[in-house]
Amino acid sequence: MAEIHAARRARARDKVAARGADAALITSLANVRYLTGLASSNAALLLPAAGPEVLATDSRYAEAAARDCPDVELVVERFIEPALARLAVTRGLGTVAFEAQEMTVDRHQALAALDGGPVLIPFGQAVEELRIVKDESEIALVARACAITSAACTDALGSVRPGVTEREFAIVLERAMTDRGAEALAFDTIVASGPNGAIPHHVPGNRAFEVGDLITIDCGARYRGYHADMTRTVALGEIAGWQRDIYGLVAAAEQAGITAARAGADVGTVDAAARDLIADAGHSAHFQHGVGHGVGLEVHEAPIIGYGWTGTLMDRTPVTVEPGIYLPGKGGVRIEDTLVVRAGAGAAGSADLLTTTTRELLVL
Amino acid sequence: MAEIHAARRARARDKVAARGADAALITSLANVRYLTGLASSNAALLLPAAGPEVLATDSRYAEAAARDCPDVELVVERFIEPALARLAVTRGLGTVAFEAQEMTVDRHQALAALDGGPVLIPFGQAVEELRIVKDESEIALVARACAITSAACTDALGSVRPGVTEREFAIVLERAMTDRGAEALAFDTIVASGPNGAIPHHVPGNRAFEVGDLITIDCGARYRGYHADMTRTVALGEIAGWQRDIYGLVAAAEQAGITAARAGADVGTVDAAARDLIADAGHSAHFQHGVGHGVGLEVHEAPIIGYGWTGTLMDRTPVTVEPGIYLPGKGGVRIEDTLVVRAGAGAAGSADLLTTTTRELLVL
Repeated sequence: MAEIHAARRARARDKVAARGADAALITSLANVRYLTGLASSNAALLLPAAGPEVLATDSRYAEAAARDCPDVELVVERFIEPALARLAVTRGLGTVAFEAQEMTVDRHQALAALDGGPVLIPFGQAVEELRIVKDESEIALVARACAITSAACTDALGSVRPGVTEREFAIVLERAMTDRGAEALAFDTIVASGPNGAIPHHVPGNRAFEVGDLITIDCGARYRGYHADMTRTVALGEIAGWQRDIYGLVAAAEQAGITAARAGADVGTVDAAARDLIADAGHSAHFQHGVGHGVGLEVHEAPIIGYGWTGTLMDRTPVTVEPGIYLPGKGGVRIEDTLVVRAGAGAAGSADLLTTTTRELLVL
Repeated sequence: MAEIHAARRARARDKVAARGADAALITSLANVRYLTGLASSNAALLLPAAGPEVLATDSRYAEAAARDCPDVELVVERFIEPALARLAVTRGLGTVAFEAQEMTVDRHQALAALDGGPVLIPFGQAVEELRIVKDESEIALVARACAITSAACTDALGSVRPGVTEREFAIVLERAMTDRGAEALAFDTIVASGPNGAIPHHVPGNRAFEVGDLITIDCGARYRGYHADMTRTVALGEIAGWQRDIYGLVAAAEQAGITAARAGADVGTVDAAARDLIADAGHSAHFQHGVGHGVGLEVHEAPIIGYGWTGTLMDRTPVTVEPGIYLPGKGGVRIEDTLVVRAGAGAAGSADLLTTTTRELLVL
C-alpha cells in the first residue's frame, strides 16, 4: 500500500507546483488518508512541491502513523497546523497552499497570524479532484462495501412485516451489514414508512409498518474507509395505484440516469435525464434534491450530479443515481444505486452497478 | 420542547446584540440543533438581535423542520447560506456575525463576495459557550446515554475470553448498546488489546485476546442527540506486576481528576491533578493527551480539560476525565468517566458520576 500512497502524493505534488506554491498543507482528513493511508481524527500533511513530506498527528495516533506511513516523516504535536506551518518556513517553503474548502476562518487566521509564518494561498480542491478517478484497489473496496450492503438489505427485507417499527427494521439491517463485514455504517440508516416516506431524510422512529405502506430504506456499509449508498422502496401487503405509478416513474427515472452516467457525460445532462421524466409527469415540485454524487472515502464527494452543477463524468468514478418522488402527507419513493462510471463500457449499463438488491417492485 | 429552544434563542440573541451585530448566521449543525431542535446535515439559522428568526434547510429536511420547529420561519433552499445572507439584507440586517470556528474560508469568501450582501463579522463561539452549562433536560439525556453505555459495557465484559478478537468484542458491545436504546454510537468504539493498548485510538482489528492482555475499551452511546463517553481497562486471565502498577496509577489519577472537577475549578488545575500523579511516577512521556472534555450534542465539546487550556468549570457541565498510560510495544491503561460538574455538590464526588461500570481492576 505504501507505493500506492507514494504515487498519489507524486500526483498531488504536481498540483502544488502548478499552483505556484512551495508546499501544500493538507488538512482534509479524507485527503490525508488518501495520500498517506492514515485514518485519524487529527492529522495534517505538509506536501512540498519538492522534498520530503511531513505527516503531523497527536500522540493518540503516533503509533498508528508510524506503522501505516513508514515512508513519511512524522511529527507528533498537539497543535499540528501551526507546527507544520512553522516547519515549512524553516525548510524554505515560504508559500503554502491551504485547503480553503476545509479550513475554517478561525484556523486560517491563526496560521496567517503566525510570527514569521508562511504566505498562505488557496490550493483549490486539488486532492478532491485527484480522488474523483479511483484506482482499481479503491473501486474494489467500494464494490465490497456495496456487496455487503446489497446482501444485507436483501436478507433484511425478509423481516418487513406489519407491526415492525422503522427503528427495529433499521437495527436488523444494520446488524446484517455488520455480520457481512461492514466496519461501520456509511451514514445513519433511513427507514421511512407510510407518510414518513415524504421526508427524504427521515430518522427511523417508532412508527410500525402497516399494510398499504411504501417503505423507503436508504443504507450503506463502510469497508476499509470506503462507502456504499443504496436505497430501495418496497410496498407492504398491498399497493395502491398511485403508489405503483410513482414507483414506476422513479424506477424509469433512475434507469435513465444510470444509462446517461457515462464517461464524458456532463453532470447536468445526467441530472436532467432522470429529472425530466419526473417533471414531465407533473412531479417537479416533488423532487428537489440532486440526482447523485460521488462515493469513495466520503459517502458524499465529488462529482455532484445536480442541476446547476458543472463537470464531466470520468472513467473509474463511483457515483450514485437516486431520484425520488415525495408527496407531502402521503408518502414517497426513492431508488438509488451506486455504480462505477467506466470509459468504453459499451451498452451493458447494468454491468457497472455495484449495488445489486433487486429494483423490481416488491410487495412484501 | 419548543419553549426550551425559544429560551435558548433568547439567550443567544443577547450575545448577538452584545457583539454589535444585527443578526448572527448560525451554521454549526450542533448549534442549529441546540437552538431549534432540528437535526439535519444541512441547515442554518438567521438569528436577529431583534425580530423573527429564519431557519433554512434543503428539501430533504423541509418536513422535519416544519414539524420540529413550528415556531420558526422556514426557508427551503438548495444553497442555504447565501439565501439567508441575502434575506438578512432585505430585512435591514446589514451586519451579520458568522461562526468563524465552523465556516470554511471558501464559504466565507462566497458570502463576502455577494453583491449587496451583509457585512460579516466573527461571532466567536457564543453558542458553544451557552451550550457548556446544560439545562436539566440535557443532563438527563447525557445521563441516559451514559446509563445505556454502562449497562452495555458491564454485560459485554462477560464475553471477554481468550480467542475473541477486538472486532468481535466491539460488535458485542455495540449491539448491547443498541439493545438498550442507543440511537447510534457516540463514536467509533475502541478495543485495544495487549500491545495495541499502547495506541490510544486503536481501531479494533483481528487480534485475538490472549491470557495476560490488558484490554482497553472506549465506548459510548448516543441518545436523542446526546453523547456518552466511557473507557474501562480489564486484564485477561492473569496480571503482571507492571500491569497492576500502571492500572493503580491511572485509577488514582482519574479519581484525582474527578475530585478536582468542581464548579469553579480551573481546567488546567483539573488536568494537573490527574497528570501530576502520572508524571511523578515517571510516566509523563507516556501520557500526552488531555485529561478530558465537555460532552453534549457533540462527543467532544467545550470545555477542554488539558494543559495549555484556560477556563473555569461551571455548574451543570458534563465532562470526561480520562487519563492513561501508554507503554510502546507493551500495552496501556486508560480509565474514563463522564460526570456532571455541579455547584455545591459537597463531598460525595461519586454522586456526580454518570458512567457506572465498575472501576475496580477486573481480571476476567
